[in-house]
Amino acid sequence: MKYVKNTDFCKKPHVSLVGAGPGDPELISLKAYRLLQEADVVLYDALVAPALLEEVPSHVHKVNVGKRCGQGSWKQSDINSFLVDCAFRYGHVIRLKGGDPFVFGRGQEEVNFIRKFGISVDVIPGISSVMAAPSSGGIPLTHRGVSDSFWVVTATTRHHKLSNDLELAAQSSATLVILMGTRKLAEVVQVVSRHRKADTPVGLVQSATLAHQKVVLGQLDNIVQLGREAEFGAPGIIIIGDVVAQHPYFQGVKNTVEVAPELRTKSV
Amino acid sequence: MKYVKNTDFCKKPHVSLVGAGPGDPELISLKAYRLLQEADVVLYDALVAPALLEEVPSHVHKVNVGKRCGQGSWKQSDINSFLVDCAFRYGHVIRLKGGDPFVFGRGQEEVNFIRKFGISVDVIPGISSVMAAPSSGGIPLTHRGVSDSFWVVTATTRHHKLSNDLELAAQSSATLVILMGTRKLAEVVQVVSRHRKADTPVGLVQSATLAHQKVVLGQLDNIVQLGREAEFGAPGIIIIGDVVAQHPYFQGVKNTVEVAPELRTKSV
Repeated sequence: MKYVKNTDFCKKPHVSLVGAGPGDPELISLKAYRLLQEADVVLYDALVAPALLEEVPSHVHKVNVGKRCGQGSWKQSDINSFLVDCAFRYGHVIRLKGGDPFVFGRGQEEVNFIRKFGISVDVIPGISSVMAAPSSGGIPLTHRGVSDSFWVVTATTRHHKLSNDLELAAQSSATLVILMGTRKLAEVVQVVSRHRKADTPVGLVQSATLAHQKVVLGQLDNIVQLGREAEFGAPGIIIIGDVVAQHPYFQGVKNTVEVAPELRTKSV
Repeated sequence: MKYVKNTDFCKKPHVSLVGAGPGDPELISLKAYRLLQEADVVLYDALVAPALLEEVPSHVHKVNVGKRCGQGSWKQSDINSFLVDCAFRYGHVIRLKGGDPFVFGRGQEEVNFIRKFGISVDVIPGISSVMAAPSSGGIPLTHRGVSDSFWVVTATTRHHKLSNDLELAAQSSATLVILMGTRKLAEVVQVVSRHRKADTPVGLVQSATLAHQKVVLGQLDNIVQLGREAEFGAPGIIIIGDVVAQHPYFQGVKNTVEVAPELRTKSV
């Protein structure tokens, strides 16, 4: 335990897994925002907006347990233990996670661990970048007559390999939404190209809903090069399928609102 | 046009497609809430919480353009025209949609129509029931070592038939999330059972995040009967896959928090 403090009060231990939303701090829910004001401790991830943390009252303990590629970080088992420790010591702990806590966020592992100690847990959903990245990038996930479904897959499994599901997904007619695939774009494109046509539309959205959001549009046979030229980087989302052609760029109606200016707000 | 009024001021026409979230009015985003205070007109769907509409200032025009199964309702083309008409007459129009505007919400059709008139549009994402129903029902969409992906499909296509994608999705290893499938549960189960084992876990979540939320747990070979006994109805979501076994009921750790009490709040 890195963070221990004895207190002389005794509050009921409780943990809330809370989704912070996709990037823009104003996209957090009213409920999550209210809980942040009421919490005793907030444990937050690297992707949570600094402007949001500034809104947490100063008497609340805030701890960054974030994990970033290649940087020193907390192990999941340490985060689990720390959550339990904080709940017993301080009372109401908010586990603030980027996006939605139950989408590739290891939320269930934390819930299962906490429950073993008889501590109550609730989950407050958040806007996942699965939805927010396409919509703020101008790409619908479904569109009548174009796509009836979408398949969400992470590019990187725990063994640092491409998920087997990607090969299956590529064979389907679903819109593909690939998370954590920025560094594996070429590999992803290679797999999908085995099953889909070279001119299948592809969209890349980086830093969705933030002022520095970047959208790259292309097709399977040129997106790797376009992504390289645009210096597409993490955190980013890859969207593959005919719905990408709904973007104004594809429709030839440029110069209308391409990326919502409303979504570029940085402050709460 | 059903709703026309001449005004003597001239505001810049603009439309915001705004996600209201999954049911609980407190799950709307801070940004969406702020826009509702600033709007000139709000056109809302049937699934938007009444408590949320009460928060809209009284001088703002509010129009229900909601569609409910079997009840008289607005045609999509009428909604499109009305959006444009309101924007030219009043200025800032909020198109408030349940969940997220770009997930099976025909949002792109509205965007495409509005843009033809040179009116600017932005999209404010919302928490979709795709995420909120599983999480408030205690079911993660992904879980390390159990599922790397999830496939979201609507049960009902525009021809009122089951989507062909369901047959494909059933053959995959993805967690299946089926929207608008309440009335077609037996049909959905029949299709999925051709490809998945009879003891595949299934969860049904009705009225997610609301006080009267209902969760039904079972497996492919008994969920139709269990759903009937529990009077599972619309609006509901079907979740199929091994992640459903992460629910406390399956784990034998009942009596901890099964459905977040925090999520049952009705008022904003």
